[in-house]
Amino acid sequence: MKSLNIGIIGFGTVGTGVYKVLKSFDKICIKQIAVKNKTKKRAIENFDTTILTDDAFEVVNNPEIDIVVEVAGGVSPAFELLSTAIKNKKHIVTANKELLAKKGSELFTLAKENNVVILYEAAVAGGIPIIMPIKTILSANRITKIAAILNGTTNYILTKMAEKELSYETALKQAQELGYAETDPTGDVEGFDAAYKISILSTISFNKKVDINKIYREGITKITSQDIKSAKELGYKIKLIAMGQVLESGKIDVRVHPMLVAKKHLLAKVDNATNSIMLSGYPVGDLVLTGPGAGAEPTASSVVGDILVLASGLEYSDCPLPQAVCHHNEYADQISIGETYNEYYISINAGNNPGVIGLIGTICGKNNINISTIMQKGINDDNTAEIVVITELSKESDIQNALKELLKSESINKIDNLLRVMN
Amino acid sequence: MKSLNIGIIGFGTVGTGVYKVLKSFDKICIKQIAVKNKTKKRAIENFDTTILTDDAFEVVNNPEIDIVVEVAGGVSPAFELLSTAIKNKKHIVTANKELLAKKGSELFTLAKENNVVILYEAAVAGGIPIIMPIKTILSANRITKIAAILNGTTNYILTKMAEKELSYETALKQAQELGYAETDPTGDVEGFDAAYKISILSTISFNKKVDINKIYREGITKITSQDIKSAKELGYKIKLIAMGQVLESGKIDVRVHPMLVAKKHLLAKVDNATNSIMLSGYPVGDLVLTGPGAGAEPTASSVVGDILVLASGLEYSDCPLPQAVCHHNEYADQISIGETYNEYYISINAGNNPGVIGLIGTICGKNNINISTIMQKGINDDNTAEIVVITELSKESDIQNALKELLKSESINKIDNLLRVMN
Repeated sequence: MKSLNIGIIGFGTVGTGVYKVLKSFDKICIKQIAVKNKTKKRAIENFDTTILTDDAFEVVNNPEIDIVVEVAGGVSPAFELLSTAIKNKKHIVTANKELLAKKGSELFTLAKENNVVILYEAAVAGGIPIIMPIKTILSANRITKIAAILNGTTNYILTKMAEKELSYETALKQAQELGYAETDPTGDVEGFDAAYKISILSTISFNKKVDINKIYREGITKITSQDIKSAKELGYKIKLIAMGQVLESGKIDVRVHPMLVAKKHLLAKVDNATNSIMLSGYPVGDLVLTGPGAGAEPTASSVVGDILVLASGLEYSDCPLPQAVCHHNEYADQISIGETYNEYYISINAGNNPGVIGLIGTICGKNNINISTIMQKGINDDNTAEIVVITELSKESDIQNALKELLKSESINKIDNLLRVMN
Repeated sequence: MKSLNIGIIGFGTVGTGVYKVLKSFDKICIKQIAVKNKTKKRAIENFDTTILTDDAFEVVNNPEIDIVVEVAGGVSPAFELLSTAIKNKKHIVTANKELLAKKGSELFTLAKENNVVILYEAAVAGGIPIIMPIKTILSANRITKIAAILNGTTNYILTKMAEKELSYETALKQAQELGYAETDPTGDVEGFDAAYKISILSTISFNKKVDINKIYREGITKITSQDIKSAKELGYKIKLIAMGQVLESGKIDVRVHPMLVAKKHLLAKVDNATNSIMLSGYPVGDLVLTGPGAGAEPTASSVVGDILVLASGLEYSDCPLPQAVCHHNEYADQISIGETYNEYYISINAGNNPGVIGLIGTICGKNNINISTIMQKGINDDNTAEIVVITELSKESDIQNALKELLKSESINKIDNLLRVMN
């Protein structure tokens, strides 16, 4: 293996994990690390503080550095830093999903022009090997569908809501106390993090640029313990699913939203902070890859894996990893959520009125919606009824029309929730 | 991608699958295919029969061929054929697990001397990406344990025994009728196939040569429907598990045998002919990779994946894939089954005698075995009792001694089964 000099940008939990793992590889020399605060105490034995800088541009302009490892996160200044590094002919290893989802296309074009590669195994699903396998050993496949649990925080919250019958708010609070959720949990619970990841996965799986702004995104904040209970009674768990699929028309359907997942489905069996990716393609069929989606050590496995692959490639060629080059000329033709077809779970609050079930059936029928299950969940104290409906495969726009029509009726008080179903 | 000429040895189900998938890649030319019978009808449209030969040595000696794909199986003549191909500087892609398990070391040494690579993603777990990921993106890890379901036939039989309460014989017969088991099922049901695969996986995971002859191997032929029923009552499924682990001593423990797997374990959720590999290492933690372990199409995904990776590497360098080179100087220090520690399931046929439970407890205690569960399964018609014992972690040699001692007692008629337990 060729001996290489590394510069690291970002020295928090992940950066420190990468440092510790890299230390055991003789031929990798950590030349410089960009930090926010040079004087902060580091929990590392015999740490040479002279390699620290508080100016990250020093790292990307350092002529001795071959590979820049970026584990700081965020779009700015990461974009400016990595653009500079690429222009300085440095290879990039990054875990920054937001940057790649928003600016990947520009960075990959720049990398191609400068004959360097950007590797980013750690940006999606932490320690699970998925990016490199798709680009190498699975490259004979036409991948048609990805359905995945890509956010550990929301999976942890949903698991605890189900196991301990907690409300969303209580489960979130416990997750925050245990360090599974951040003080401002928006990026996780509103599905932004999962959307960044599925945009990256869909781009390399379908070989077309996926626009992050066209990804339908819905988080888990509206899931109630009643939804989880009803789902359980019907044989489902609720999971935040990131999915991307190629339709027969060639159009691409990419979205993030909670789903009822049938208990027998392997994704339903993935609990707590674990991530899991189901990939379907020809000729391979269905694969399910499960493992730790975050954390210093699993992330370091992927970051250092990328570095070792690069080091190995650079030993024999200045153009390492031809298969790792990401460059997609074409934009995917992404459909909107209204054009998608799904089975649906609809939770309806209605007046305690014998005509209500008939009304729901009639309005669904008029809108081309077949009901597969309807369940009245008793009568509430205020003499209203909770009715849960599961539909057969229906078009989202038809569902939205039916819901509007239902709400016009005096018998229907409220649509408590609308969720999609995976069987 | 460089344009390459391929020769294929073996044109059965897998060979035909590889042919069909390769056809969609412009720069890959299938130059010659070695078959048993040149005149046999092939279910392929517009098939050019002039590329067929019934002399496989023509393929390995053909100067126009860059890569030899071997999907014929067996040790001889595959070993002689691939040795010749390697000496002729051809790269090898093979799905032949028996050959690699028995002759891998010789072939890899020969390949190194001749500056060619041998790729074999399809030899282990069909379409599941595992060999290439271990060698590339997971290479930062010290892998400490693999536990896997690597044989689809036995997993199918065990699944049907559990689902439909069938005897082993009936489930085998049904599997044979459906094409899941061969007419002579020995290679699968006695664990040979799984042993070949775990020897290959252990070798690349632990970076030491694993001797196939030192792998403890036990098949599924002695599993009764009563065992499956008792396991179910105790919260377990029975699976044929191939495992390899590095012990604290540095010694290696590799074996194949049926195990009771706790229902909450992800491997217990893998049914029918599906394969699954759990890999544990530092820093990645635990990964579980699940997918189709056999079949023409999943196997073709891996074979063609290897070819495309090779083609891509050869475009820029005559020494492609430095990380793919397999060469281990050292033999693993493999322990025998007697030295292993496990939890055990022991099914005992005893006289209907109130002192029996006490006797079992006493003999176990004397042999350093703690019992965690003991369950008497009623009284048989012949006035004997079925007693099931689950032990805490015990040494296999202690268990064997205890069983011998139990059998000396007049109250114990027979040890019906001894199985190991995974929690």
